Parts: sequence; structure tokens; C-alpha cells
Amino acid sequence: MIIPFVSSLNTQEEQDWVKALSSALPNESITPFSKLSKQQKQTAEIAIIANPNPDDLKQLPGLVWVHSVWAGVEKLLQGNATPNYSIVRLIDPELSRTMSEAVLAWSLYLHRNMPDYRMQQAKAVWNPLPYVPAPERKIGVLGLGELGQASAKLLKKFGFSVIGWSRSAKDITGVECLNGQDGLDDLLSQSDILVCLLPQTPETEGLLGHENLSKLKPGAELINFARGKIVDEDALLHELNVGRIHHAVLDVFQYEPLPRSHTFWTHPNITVLPHISAPTTVESAVSIVAQNIRNYRHLNMLPATVDVQLGY
Amino acid sequence: MIIPFVSSLNTQEEQDWVKALSSALPNESITPFSKLSKQQKQTAEIAIIANPNPDDLKQLPGLVWVHSVWAGVEKLLQGNATPNYSIVRLIDPELSRTMSEAVLAWSLYLHRNMPDYRMQQAKAVWNPLPYVPAPERKIGVLGLGELGQASAKLLKKFGFSVIGWSRSAKDITGVECLNGQDGLDDLLSQSDILVCLLPQTPETEGLLGHENLSKLKPGAELINFARGKIVDEDALLHELNVGRIHHAVLDVFQYEPLPRSHTFWTHPNITVLPHISAPTTVESAVSIVAQNIRNYRHLNMLPATVDVQLGY
Ligand SMILES: NC(=O)c1ccc[n+]([C@@H]2O[C@H](COP(=O)([O-])OP(=O)(O)OC[C@H]3O[C@@H](n4cnc5c(N)ncnc54)[C@H](OP(=O)(O)O)[C@@H]3O)[C@@H](O)[C@H]2O)c1
Ligand SMILES: NC(=O)c1ccc[n+]([C@@H]2O[C@H](COP(=O)([O-])OP(=O)(O)OC[C@H]3O[C@@H](n4cnc5c(N)ncnc54)[C@H](OP(=O)(O)O)[C@@H]3O)[C@@H](O)[C@H]2O)c1
Repeated sequence: MIIPFVSSLNTQEEQDWVKALSSALPNESITPFSKLSKQQKQTAEIAIIANPNPDDLKQLPGLVWVHSVWAGVEKLLQGNATPNYSIVRLIDPELSRTMSEAVLAWSLYLHRNMPDYRMQQAKAVWNPLPYVPAPERKIGVLGLGELGQASAKLLKKFGFSVIGWSRSAKDITGVECLNGQDGLDDLLSQSDILVCLLPQTPETEGLLGHENLSKLKPGAELINFARGKIVDEDALLHELNVGRIHHAVLDVFQYEPLPRSHTFWTHPNITVLPHISAPTTVESAVSIVAQNIRNYRHLNMLPATVDVQLGY
Repeated sequence: MIIPFVSSLNTQEEQDWVKALSSALPNESITPFSKLSKQQKQTAEIAIIANPNPDDLKQLPGLVWVHSVWAGVEKLLQGNATPNYSIVRLIDPELSRTMSEAVLAWSLYLHRNMPDYRMQQAKAVWNPLPYVPAPERKIGVLGLGELGQASAKLLKKFGFSVIGWSRSAKDITGVECLNGQDGLDDLLSQSDILVCLLPQTPETEGLLGHENLSKLKPGAELINFARGKIVDEDALLHELNVGRIHHAVLDVFQYEPLPRSHTFWTHPNITVLPHISAPTTVESAVSIVAQNIRNYRHLNMLPATVDVQLGY
């Protein structure tokens, strides 16, 4: 049967996905959106999507559900219309592995003072900085879902002290789990390194703005690997410039690619990454998407879908 | 009894050590070298040392053994005279922990392309680089002693592919262990990241020179956390400049502090660190030294001593 592939990818990337999906799903006909006939648009029941233009999806009135090959789905829920299809997002152990690897890597980057040593090197300054043992370094993880939980567990396993925050109460061995505004205040005041792994929703947009960032422990550091809009850029610059935040590692931005003229590029206390913390691996994502589609065809089963009210 | 403390530390550091050692060893009188009387110099049987001037030790003719609070002891063995006392060096689980942490941290730094992203940021270039999964990244560890073995095990536990090299044959679960020149050639040709944790001895000085560095896999990266003299600086610069070595992270140098005019400071593909990979923690080192001294006093037992012939 026809399954549209709707994306904002370039032609080469789109072809790679369609090819890999087609060989994993030999009984389906995976077809790029641009190649669909009118009739095919009317009857498609499932679509596979990669950051699609929401208007394209409006041209598929028969959709029962869509499968995103990415973890974040905020773009689908923008505007006021509630979609009349269900949304399945990618939950992929390989994605959790690469994200938790990135969280550990850039936590160690901050923990072992790499940005400071880089600045000293630029001035030919030989100056050993005080060493803080990992168990005395507290890392606060915002969001304890698929990615936040995997990251918190790896940080803990490595030896850091870890606290976490989520909407509902959680119980994770060795990790102090908080929730609510009180819990957030607590986490902000205690964290040496704050790692953001929240989804972008109406509740989390701008959450790390003037008010919450000013509650951070002086000298704290920030890692945002979730979505740019969760952090208020002006508030972040302010806290960096007054020294409350010592350094920020940013992988995600309000507008991506980050515009060439943006002040983040040249800020000495910001590390800019081009959205690489957790790349989707086509091979592993395709096998998960294919299995979900087979389960639907054969068993009429869908995995957990996105809660449209909550936005994640 | 009098135990001289012989160091090249500054006064404050020396005082900190003497104070901590004195309270851990209340029955001994820990005395800075400069404060010893002639008589005390004649009779001292044990000395505690931190990178001492070897000439100072020559003024202590009654020494039976010395305890270094550092792991590397090459300076004591320089020149041709064989010391007539035994040398105990620091073997400290806390040192193994900080060193293996550093090895993992800077391996992840290279693995996740941090130097390349930093250069792209300097040019405001948004360019995601291809991601290589950790199990496909091979890390070669030179030296499988206290520090090399702890590091190899942590790298393996994290998920990297790990090979190692030492003088004698070793058997470490999950780590391919090699030895001899053939083994070294094998390791050099396979390693994506080469980590040096060898002691400095007559055999290892200049070991990473033109011949061996030119056997590296093209694009390999180097981490030297052992001693500067193991790497030939000109050979390293040559391999960096022709691109065989992509990046080098150096914590140790022929002369430390690295002279301000040294070309390493400004080389775009060298990360200079001020000998901070594994700082000795006074507290944990003191408790190990104190226990070794008590065992000697009460049980007449010494831990394994340095092999003066082999130089480590
Ligand atoms: N940079 C990259 O390369 C990259 C790659 C993949 C994903 N991401 C981003 O990472 C985000 C997280 O992914 P995931 O798979 O871990 O999502 P997830 O499984 O849905 O987890 C979201 C977590 O955030 C918590 N949360 C949501 N709204 C909250 C609120 N208002 N207050 C407090 N906690 C709240 C949830 O709490 P409950 O547990 O109580 O529900 C949950 O713990 C994605 O949305 C995406 O934006 C980035
Ligand atoms: N940068 C820093 O902050 C810092 C801090 C502490 C130490 N260090 C350096 O790290 C070095 C290693 O410390 P460690 O405690 O791990 O020493 P170790 O326990 O004595 O181990 C030395 C290892 O190197 C191997 N080796 C020695 N000579 C060799 C040769 N000619 N060919 C092949 N392998 C050889 C040994 O092989 P076998 O196992 O067969 O004997 C052993 O595996 C120290 O000597 C010191 O210089 C640096």
C-alpha cells in the first residue's frame, strides 16, 4: 500500500530514507510526497514524516496516524488546529545511546574545564585549575523521558551526583527526582551543570527565562540539547555576561542553522554545536519504524502516541 | 622519628603536605628538607618526596627507602648513579580514577569532534560532521600498568573498541593486549585514538618518533598524558602538518611549564593542557603513604618498589 514520506530534507537525504524504508517494508510502497497522485493523497492512511511542512499533511485527509523519524514533534502541533490523526514519534535505543553519550561528553567537557583551558591556551597561560571530584559535581537533568532518563543514568553510572526534574513523579535509583515549581527551584539552586532534555511544548517554551535562570547557583553551566525555544536567548546572554552562568553548550537554537550574524557564534562563553548531539541513525530508525508499521498492519496495534493536549 | 619531606614544591604546597602527613603519622616527625640539622640528615632512613632535586637526596646517606607522592619517578633515575635506596611510588586508586576520567573525557572530546566544531564556530560555519558510533572507534592504549589498565577498562565499559600494549603479555577481558615491536606496529596501524600512558624510561624516551608515528593510521589522534619526552616534538609537528595526525591533546611536555614562545601553544591541531590530567589529591595520597610507612615500622614490610634497571 502507498505510504507517503513527507519531509523537509534535501533530495539526497530523502532518497536515502525512502530506499532504506522500502527495503525494510517490501509490501509497502513508500512514496515521496511530491510524487503522490491526487488519488493517493486522498487515500493514504499512514505517513512517515521527517520534520514536514504541516501544510503538506493537511493535503492527506485520510491519515489515521503518522510516524515521525525524529523524537521532537512540536512543529506538528503548532497553530491552533488539533490534528485528526495520531502521532507516533521515534523511540530508539540508538538515539538514547547517542544522546546520553553526548550528555556525558559535554558534561565532562565542562567538568574538566575544557573551555577555560582553551582560553588559557589562546593566551599561552600555564595555569592548572582546581580539580573537583566527579561525585562532588551535581548535574541537574530537566526532563526524565527516554533521553533524559538514559542520560541521568549514564551520568550517575560514571560517578557524578545527579538530580532530575519531570512533570510527573519518578523513581530512578541513585537519582534524586523532583517535580513542580518547588522541585525546579531546588534543582536550579543546586546544579553545577544544568542539562535540558525537555520537549518543546506550550509549558516549556521560554521556561529557562530571566526568572528561572536567575535562580541558578552562581557559576553554573548550561547544556541545551533539547530545543532552542525552551531557553530565552536574551536572558541567557544576560546571565552569561553577569557571570551567573559560566559557560553554555548549545546544540539547538530558535532558528537553525544559527544565522551567521548571531552573537552566539562569537561569545567566548558559548559553545555552538550544529544540532549534532543525537543524530538519527537511518538504519536503526528504519528498523523501528518498519516494526511499528508491521504491528499496525498485522495486529492493529499502535505504540504510545503523542498527547496532543500536553504537546509531547 | 624524623622523616624528611624533600620536594620542589612552593612553600604553601610543601606546608600543606607536611601538615597532612604529620596528622596522619602522629608518631613521626615529618620535616621539610630545608629544616633538617646535619645530624638528622645523617640518620634519616625514610624520606617522602615530591619531585625532589636528586642532589638533596644525596645528602641523606642513610636512606633505606623513599616514598614518592607522585606516580612518575624518572627524575630520580637520571644520570648514571644507581640509588642505594629503594623507591616506592604512589599507587592510588584515586589517581587511577582521575586519570581514567581524563582519558575518557578527552577521548570523547576527540570522538565527538569537539576541536573541529570549535574551529567551525570560529568561522560561523554550521556543518554537522559524520557521526561514528563508539564501538567503531578504536582506542589504542600504550602502557597497561595502574593507569593504563584503569583507563582501558573504563573506555571499554563506556563502549569503545580498545587495544593495549605493554612490555609483558597481559590478559584483560574485552581488551586486545599486544606486546613487542610487532604488537606496537599492529596497534599503531589500527588505532583511531592513541593514548600514551607509558612511564618515561630509557626504552620509552622518544618512542613516538618519526618511525613509529609514521605507522599511525591516517587521521589518527594522539593523547599524551604520560611524559613529554616519550614523544618526539618535531616528529609530532611533522605528522600534524602533513595530516597523518589530525589532532593531539598534550598534558605533558619536554619542559614544563611549556615555554610561552613554544609553537604548540598556537598550533590549531594541538590542545595544550597544563599537566592536569591526573592531579594528586593530597588527602588520598597521604592516607596511602601513611599506611605504607606504618606497615614498614610495624611489620617491616615494603610495597613493590621501582625496578631501577627497567626504570619504572
Ligand atoms: N538535539 C538533538 O539532536 C535532539 C535529538 C532528539 C531529541 N531531541 C529533543 O529531546 C526532547 C526530549 O526527548 P524524549 O524522547 O526524552 O522525550 P519524552 O520521552 O517525551 O520525555 C520528555 C520528558 O520531559 C518531561 N516534561 C514534559 N513537559 C514537562 C513540563 N511542563 N514540566 C516538567 N517536565 C516536563 C516529561 O515528564 P513526564 O515523564 O512526567 O511525562 C518527560 O520526563 C525531544 O522533545 C526533542 O525536542 C533533541
Ligand atoms: N599527566 C599526569 O598528570 C600523570 C599523573 C600520573 C602519572 N603520569 C605518568 O603515567 C605513567 C604511567 O603510570 P602507571 O602508574 O600506570 O605506571 P606502571 O603501573 O608502572 O605501568 C607502566 C606500564 O607501561 C608498560 N611499559 C613500561 N615500559 C615499557 C616498554 N619499554 N614497552 C612497552 N610497555 C612498557 C608496563 O608494562 P608491564 O605491565 O609489562 O610492566 C606497564 O604496563 C607514569 O610513569 C607517569 O609518568 C602522568
